[in-house]
Amino acid sequence: MPNASRFRLHEIAERFGLSLHGDGQRFIAGVTTLQATDAPAETLAFLANPQYRKFLATTAASAVVVRAEYVADCPVPALISPNPYAAYARIAALFEPGVSAPAGVHPTAVIADSAKVDPSASVGPLAVIGERSVVAAGAVIGAGCVLGEDCSVGAGSRLVARVTLVCRVHLGERVLVHPGAVIGADGFGLAPDQGAWLKVPQLGGVRIGNDCEIGANTTIDRGAIDDTVLEEDVRLDNQIQVGHNVRIGAHTAIAGCVAIAGSTTIGRWCLIGGAAGIVGHLTLCDKVTIGAMSLVTHSIDTPGEYASGTPLQPKREWRKNAARFGQLDRLARLLLRKSD
Amino acid sequence: MPNASRFRLHEIAERFGLSLHGDGQRFIAGVTTLQATDAPAETLAFLANPQYRKFLATTAASAVVVRAEYVADCPVPALISPNPYAAYARIAALFEPGVSAPAGVHPTAVIADSAKVDPSASVGPLAVIGERSVVAAGAVIGAGCVLGEDCSVGAGSRLVARVTLVCRVHLGERVLVHPGAVIGADGFGLAPDQGAWLKVPQLGGVRIGNDCEIGANTTIDRGAIDDTVLEEDVRLDNQIQVGHNVRIGAHTAIAGCVAIAGSTTIGRWCLIGGAAGIVGHLTLCDKVTIGAMSLVTHSIDTPGEYASGTPLQPKREWRKNAARFGQLDRLARLLLRKSD
Amino acid sequence: MPNASRFRLHEIAERFGLSLHGDGQRFIAGVTTLQATDAPAETLAFLANPQYRKFLATTAASAVVVRAEYVADCPVPALISPNPYAAYARIAALFEPGVSAPAGVHPTAVIADSAKVDPSASVGPLAVIGERSVVAAGAVIGAGCVLGEDCSVGAGSRLVARVTLVCRVHLGERVLVHPGAVIGADGFGLAPDQGAWLKVPQLGGVRIGNDCEIGANTTIDRGAIDDTVLEEDVRLDNQIQVGHNVRIGAHTAIAGCVAIAGSTTIGRWCLIGGAAGIVGHLTLCDKVTIGAMSLVTHSIDTPGEYASGTPLQPKREWRKNAARFGQLDRLARLLLRKSD
Repeated sequence: MPNASRFRLHEIAERFGLSLHGDGQRFIAGVTTLQATDAPAETLAFLANPQYRKFLATTAASAVVVRAEYVADCPVPALISPNPYAAYARIAALFEPGVSAPAGVHPTAVIADSAKVDPSASVGPLAVIGERSVVAAGAVIGAGCVLGEDCSVGAGSRLVARVTLVCRVHLGERVLVHPGAVIGADGFGLAPDQGAWLKVPQLGGVRIGNDCEIGANTTIDRGAIDDTVLEEDVRLDNQIQVGHNVRIGAHTAIAGCVAIAGSTTIGRWCLIGGAAGIVGHLTLCDKVTIGAMSLVTHSIDTPGEYASGTPLQPKREWRKNAARFGQLDRLARLLLRKSD
Repeated sequence: MPNASRFRLHEIAERFGLSLHGDGQRFIAGVTTLQATDAPAETLAFLANPQYRKFLATTAASAVVVRAEYVADCPVPALISPNPYAAYARIAALFEPGVSAPAGVHPTAVIADSAKVDPSASVGPLAVIGERSVVAAGAVIGAGCVLGEDCSVGAGSRLVARVTLVCRVHLGERVLVHPGAVIGADGFGLAPDQGAWLKVPQLGGVRIGNDCEIGANTTIDRGAIDDTVLEEDVRLDNQIQVGHNVRIGAHTAIAGCVAIAGSTTIGRWCLIGGAAGIVGHLTLCDKVTIGAMSLVTHSIDTPGEYASGTPLQPKREWRKNAARFGQLDRLARLLLRKSD
Repeated sequence: MPNASRFRLHEIAERFGLSLHGDGQRFIAGVTTLQATDAPAETLAFLANPQYRKFLATTAASAVVVRAEYVADCPVPALISPNPYAAYARIAALFEPGVSAPAGVHPTAVIADSAKVDPSASVGPLAVIGERSVVAAGAVIGAGCVLGEDCSVGAGSRLVARVTLVCRVHLGERVLVHPGAVIGADGFGLAPDQGAWLKVPQLGGVRIGNDCEIGANTTIDRGAIDDTVLEEDVRLDNQIQVGHNVRIGAHTAIAGCVAIAGSTTIGRWCLIGGAAGIVGHLTLCDKVTIGAMSLVTHSIDTPGEYASGTPLQPKREWRKNAARFGQLDRLARLLLRKSD
């Protein structure tokens, strides 16, 4: 990874408005973890999770971003922030290799006659842009992406590679979509009819707000009549399935492999744990947190944490307990009868 | 979305054999939901689910498809059908933008010498068709699809975009496959051998019946010796995993994120809820319905509904109950001993 | 499938060092299952799972691979092996159609100036190889693959088709990656900051050991600071999600649809059942087996089998039992109070 960036610690402090404690002349050329014993020279670490405090005394980092309360324990120079993780994120971006995405359309890309690509946008090799689709200023359409018809990609958005926007998909500004994501495929609409399934046309689209992030191989279906909607700053991890006409509120973050069935509305600032499921036609209010692999089967109108499932156990014990689950109502009736 | 279609209500009634109630001269130029308060002019809605009956009185639609029993409550002209959802589906198709897929092979597609593409088929930009693969009349191979060797796509089938058929995959007629689907990858066959895994060759293929639909990023592995089989009119949503040598009966519909392990047979007209799991080497009879996120661990020979799992609760309550699950056999023994 | 291979049984016995019982002059031209009633002529089956012993007497195969103890029951010639499944796997490979992958770069592939492709490697149609990426001797990059920047593919590895290596992904030798897999996308790192999410740069990479297999549409994120690591001979089925900084030990096999959250370490020779979940920052020791759809929420330091979940039941029964689960702590307290 070619990376010529190298900064003195005091330069970093000044650039991000952080207090400096200790030698500001040290060079920082990259980042490391607090606990790394083989940290390269000239690297910076951070301490956010108190559980990692034990690694502070022996850190091999050249400097650490910490809360003020930990400065005294820090054996190396420190940058002080009330939010060390966010401060670290900003500093780490200094060392991120740039994306190679020259403005203009790669000669192997295939652009429909009626499509419009801003001259400052980048369309990579072997990308396809369909009829009436629009790519705004500074957007990056990576290698092998396919945009169908009537899509739009807002300014500064980036489709990393091999992303598909099927049709009527509208991305806001600074949206980041990872490889393999499919946005705007047909919702799963079927009517039973004369002994077979009749496909229900999916006439809506998908609207993705500014600053959203869509993970690798995540799928977001387009709406049946109205649109499927993600408000701004929604963050989706990999392999999430979002059914047609779902609406996800601003700032909600969803971990990998979550399945959200059609027409469900999720509020703002919700946190959905990995591999959870949410059935269709529900409403979750703001600030709901769902545990990993939990199944949400009813609407939720009170913020807070929710979960379902049973604990992991050695299989022999689990098998006995699971068998008793199958008798639970009978056992409860027996208990309650005896309690009368 | 360019769409010049506009019909008088009586024309729609005649075309689909529906009874008309009220003013047949009204124009219909699109569809809307019954409850939409901002429905565009000249739009048609439907009432199928009785729970939505409450929206009928105030609908902003220009006309509604209803069962005969609701006509009296309908404040706007009505089309009468015993199956309003199916009638709606047929009408909505009038307003679906056509797929732009001109017959012929796009100049950027790569076609193997021994492949055969019917002149009426459409092969889109940057698609690849491998040796001895065959594309039948009227089929559409969308942008960026890859067909490997010895595959066939039946008449009128459509691979939307970026679909992969790996090898020995045979699609019937009118099959619809959404982007990112991978059909015919190696089944997961491993033999432990001398302290490592030995790969077991996957020599079978995949056969998909007529009128099947395969969702975005769904994967269907090819068989180890025999083929993996979907009978006709099987409907798979997104991100479903179908293991090698699975057989799925006609008209079965499977919601998103379901995992089906190898060599399991599922009957006809089954309904599998989202994110459910089915372990390998089982047999499910016809007309089995499985709840969302349930795990099927034994064969089922009686039609009906089945489920597993525990209810969602506030995390504090859930945690206490889940801990008791871990003691369930002990508690049950205590109870039963006391009941003696 | 063109396949001219045809061997006498004694030739197969000699090639793989197996004992022959019965007529070695028979021809074998393919494989079949033991139970197939319509087995083609000249096919070989195997008996590994004792449950299939019942099919031995009536097998239509021309020969069978069996353990010595079953030879007497075998009505056709037999090849004898202590590990019939592994012996079968080796024999079946004789009948596997070769992959058509001529050395050299297809004229439609797009190779960055600073990329290096060994002359003996094969780069298929419409593949893209980014700056500073390296493809070693005999490797196969299939149609439509996208390698980003600073990746390497070891000798003899094969990316079947439409695989994405995003950046800083390093594959060892003989690694097999199936279509739709995305390796090296951004880990899911977010810091809450001033009422929105701040993206945390993902500066690490991914390292995949020799002889690993990665299933279709599986995703493996790159690390935040350090790398995400798979040791040698790790076998991942389809649609698995591996979060950033996960480490998976050698020879571990993971079934489809498993979700592994970030920074978890899994030991060697573990077996993870389909659709299981493993939360982040855990450590699983060697030789842990996890049941299908189980959720691992704590570290495991004892080898053995573990599971969670409840049994599948008819929905009416399940509903009653599930409702009682929601009262379980109260019921247990009642029981224990009465037991005092």
